[in-house]
Amino acid sequence: MKRDDFDTWALAELDAVESALAACVPADAPAGLGDAMRYAVLDGGKRLRPLLVLAAADAVHGARSAALRAACAVELIHAYSLVHDDLPCMDDDVLRRGKPTVHVRFGVAQAMLAGDAMQALAFEILTPTDDSVAPALQAGLCGLLARAAGGGGMAGGQAIDLASVGCQLDEHALSDMHRRKTGALLRASVLMGAACGKTTSREWQSLADYGDAVGLAFQVVDDILDVTQASATLGKTAGKDIDNNKPTYVTVLGLDAAHAHADALRRAAHAALDVSGIADTEQLRELADRVVDRES
Amino acid sequence: MKRDDFDTWALAELDAVESALAACVPADAPAGLGDAMRYAVLDGGKRLRPLLVLAAADAVHGARSAALRAACAVELIHAYSLVHDDLPCMDDDVLRRGKPTVHVRFGVAQAMLAGDAMQALAFEILTPTDDSVAPALQAGLCGLLARAAGGGGMAGGQAIDLASVGCQLDEHALSDMHRRKTGALLRASVLMGAACGKTTSREWQSLADYGDAVGLAFQVVDDILDVTQASATLGKTAGKDIDNNKPTYVTVLGLDAAHAHADALRRAAHAALDVSGIADTEQLRELADRVVDRES
Repeated sequence: MKRDDFDTWALAELDAVESALAACVPADAPAGLGDAMRYAVLDGGKRLRPLLVLAAADAVHGARSAALRAACAVELIHAYSLVHDDLPCMDDDVLRRGKPTVHVRFGVAQAMLAGDAMQALAFEILTPTDDSVAPALQAGLCGLLARAAGGGGMAGGQAIDLASVGCQLDEHALSDMHRRKTGALLRASVLMGAACGKTTSREWQSLADYGDAVGLAFQVVDDILDVTQASATLGKTAGKDIDNNKPTYVTVLGLDAAHAHADALRRAAHAALDVSGIADTEQLRELADRVVDRES
Repeated sequence: MKRDDFDTWALAELDAVESALAACVPADAPAGLGDAMRYAVLDGGKRLRPLLVLAAADAVHGARSAALRAACAVELIHAYSLVHDDLPCMDDDVLRRGKPTVHVRFGVAQAMLAGDAMQALAFEILTPTDDSVAPALQAGLCGLLARAAGGGGMAGGQAIDLASVGCQLDEHALSDMHRRKTGALLRASVLMGAACGKTTSREWQSLADYGDAVGLAFQVVDDILDVTQASATLGKTAGKDIDNNKPTYVTVLGLDAAHAHADALRRAAHAALDVSGIADTEQLRELADRVVDRES
């Protein structure tokens, strides 16, 4: 796939996701809650997870309506996790996506409630009461998302992250943390897209392997960017992992080895697609490249 | 139904719920997260919501495995909401169910993460990967729970609650807040139980009406107990609504009228069961009585 073709596809999909999110995050949730939710999720972010959902769904000719809902749901979980992660009791961050964080803008309590409501909304979106998504698919998508978001996935990874401040972790422990904290939801994005179509077990496993590799690559690159980029480029506070005395791939491996690790994970992602037997994986392949080559 | 028969039924069901919760809340979630989750939800609480699920499921001859999962899921949502509600940024409470609150015991950040993970776990429990719950029922249960928990339900009610500190609310605004904050999840408990069986639209609507009435009655009684009972009886800090300058049914209606309102809601709950056409509603009827007559 030419990079121009990918960009055209991605721009159209980002537009579709933005419209769908704007339609499904309620402006009328009471007492300003809707405003906080919309502030947290609209007009911001790279939307990597929705693009992974939609690319995987395309690759297996998945149902469009379900895939778009899955894309919104996974982004809501991601966005809620950022709102909670930025709170004073966690990372206490004031800048996100180039804007004041939700609790700075709306207060700590409202930010916590907005995050809570965003998690619930993700599951609302996956369970429409019309017949636009087959019930068995609704259930499958809810299950994939819940397992990625919960104690065995993202929330569990955040608990390890919290406990690891000031600790020495070896690479194994670090990758365990990140497979949960960031990787689980990225992997689930790929599999939720895949669930929207029919897959053989080989295709499913290959996409899971791809999601694993991309998920870990994302975090390795995140750690690299945290030390190599300025806050203005990242849209969030740079250098905060170092400041917070958190173990990262850069502190554990060193910068050069972290770069090499990211490249190895890119190759692993591509290799998983190669053996998948899926005909058209160009968007997924390019997404793996973008994850590793990104500068913010 | 004789009170003894009800007590026998309720004790057996509470035992089943306790065992199911103990089995499904993971002890091995990493970095102490599982401990915080188990502390938050095991061995505590009246388990009113699970009993409503199971009584409604019994009334419509619902699938047992699904009903027990629904009972656990709704209790997890309730328990997570208490964990977050007790945090310093919200009610800043130190006592719950006669024990130190989760953030007092495990720290604020871990308490927030435990609540987040408990919400996700509720949806995990509703989407088993074996064939114990029909996929369409899984989807239906997830949808009912998500809508009750989110911005249009419980989280929205909490946002109103937050915004109403120090405000004068009329009875209409107060009941709107409580229908969301407490009522939505109690109503959903009844309907999730009903969803486990087959219902006519008249049966469904009657159970919804019953759930509405019981949900509001619960909150009216909660407001009464907050001013008439001691902390030791409640297992949580008494008088805190008054201390926090929050509008309650007692401050809006006065104590006598609040009692009368609770009785009227009990009669409305019974009346909904009377017109339902459902043969055996004795457990639900008795549960409405217990909600109104309770002393803690």
